[in-house]
Amino acid sequence: MSPRGTLYGLGLGPGDPDLMTVRAHRLLQRATHVAYFRKAGRPGQARRIVDGLLPEGVTEHAMEYPVTTEIPVDDPAYNQRLSAFYAECAAQLRALSDAGHDVVVLCEGDPFFYGSFMHLYTRLVQTHPVQVVPAITGMSGAWTATGQPITWGDDVLTVLMGTLPEARLARHMADSEALVVMKIGRHIDKVRRALTTAGRLQDAWLVEFATMPGQKVMRLAEADGRVTPYFSIVLVHGQGRRP
Amino acid sequence: MSPRGTLYGLGLGPGDPDLMTVRAHRLLQRATHVAYFRKAGRPGQARRIVDGLLPEGVTEHAMEYPVTTEIPVDDPAYNQRLSAFYAECAAQLRALSDAGHDVVVLCEGDPFFYGSFMHLYTRLVQTHPVQVVPAITGMSGAWTATGQPITWGDDVLTVLMGTLPEARLARHMADSEALVVMKIGRHIDKVRRALTTAGRLQDAWLVEFATMPGQKVMRLAEADGRVTPYFSIVLVHGQGRRP
Repeated sequence: MSPRGTLYGLGLGPGDPDLMTVRAHRLLQRATHVAYFRKAGRPGQARRIVDGLLPEGVTEHAMEYPVTTEIPVDDPAYNQRLSAFYAECAAQLRALSDAGHDVVVLCEGDPFFYGSFMHLYTRLVQTHPVQVVPAITGMSGAWTATGQPITWGDDVLTVLMGTLPEARLARHMADSEALVVMKIGRHIDKVRRALTTAGRLQDAWLVEFATMPGQKVMRLAEADGRVTPYFSIVLVHGQGRRP
Repeated sequence: MSPRGTLYGLGLGPGDPDLMTVRAHRLLQRATHVAYFRKAGRPGQARRIVDGLLPEGVTEHAMEYPVTTEIPVDDPAYNQRLSAFYAECAAQLRALSDAGHDVVVLCEGDPFFYGSFMHLYTRLVQTHPVQVVPAITGMSGAWTATGQPITWGDDVLTVLMGTLPEARLARHMADSEALVVMKIGRHIDKVRRALTTAGRLQDAWLVEFATMPGQKVMRLAEADGRVTPYFSIVLVHGQGRRP
């Protein structure tokens, strides 16, 4: 019986393939099995980042979400559907590992930072060899795109999800020098209102497709009425100590 | 007259050379001039990360801090000394660029995230070609080292400096699901007290030398009386939605 294969949660970074790590690049080049999440009918962002980098003959395993935004996240049906889906994906990876195959699971951004791979990780790590390869976060790609440092000296940085209630967003926005807001999409108006309440709107930037071909950086105050992707990022830069 | 050379703020990531980006690795391999900060008499952490990676014949420019922790940061003399030092380093880089040389400035972590390079960046970017190459942050290396995801679902993540006043630390620690505290060193007892006030001490981890040979991960509650480096990181993992 062959030894179990290793399951890699491979962080790909913010999107530009040149910004993946040397380790990620090496693991991709010798991969025999790669797996990735995607929405049904879409190529999948993680898969797109590695276009042209996978070796010939690699076996691909697309793991297609049964649901993304069709059911509200607070509906119990959402959790049940996703939970069953993750269990099924984990079973598939376990079977590959048991057969002696290493599998590279492609992850956008950094796997342990709001990533989807974590839901597989917790279902696998007790019984199978799993390795997580960290990567540059999407937010890091976004603040680099603005051409301004995000934090200086003793600045407090708070990372918020646009999905949070408006009052909680506004409270943190008023109490933190630097801000990152992720998962924007249809929450953009709420995020704008919360920033206004906190007196921070004029300092906020909207970054779309950071480090990727469609990258756009604009002042949020000038993006009124804009339809923006879910993975857009809003930033407010800290202004701390600078000798 | 030759065109001006490009000044690169090159993020090296958390410490393991295998975790630098493909772009950073390529820029290092063809570097003719590299510059880096260090404390006088020390090899310098950024320089150490690239040991064995620099090409033969590269010219090295060590930029030695005139002061680190000898003067309190709130003493005006601290700012004056550092400001003069950064101005001098920037002048040196401008001269190299004007002579047509590209210079790779080695940066630990991600240059725009509490980095020292920012102090050169703001002094150079208006007049000279500067490019910032993002990298994996030290905190990302630290949470990967713990083997647990730092954030799930809608978790709020707050990044704090151990140098902040205890009351402000405690306030944020009580109001955020996930926590990162950087610049620990001699502030470890204050950080521990603030976590205790916020009811978070039992969930806190201390990570030293993340991704590097001396890496240590321990519960903070079990590190009583421990002398830890300035660049240690304290983490509390979020426990958000997980289908």
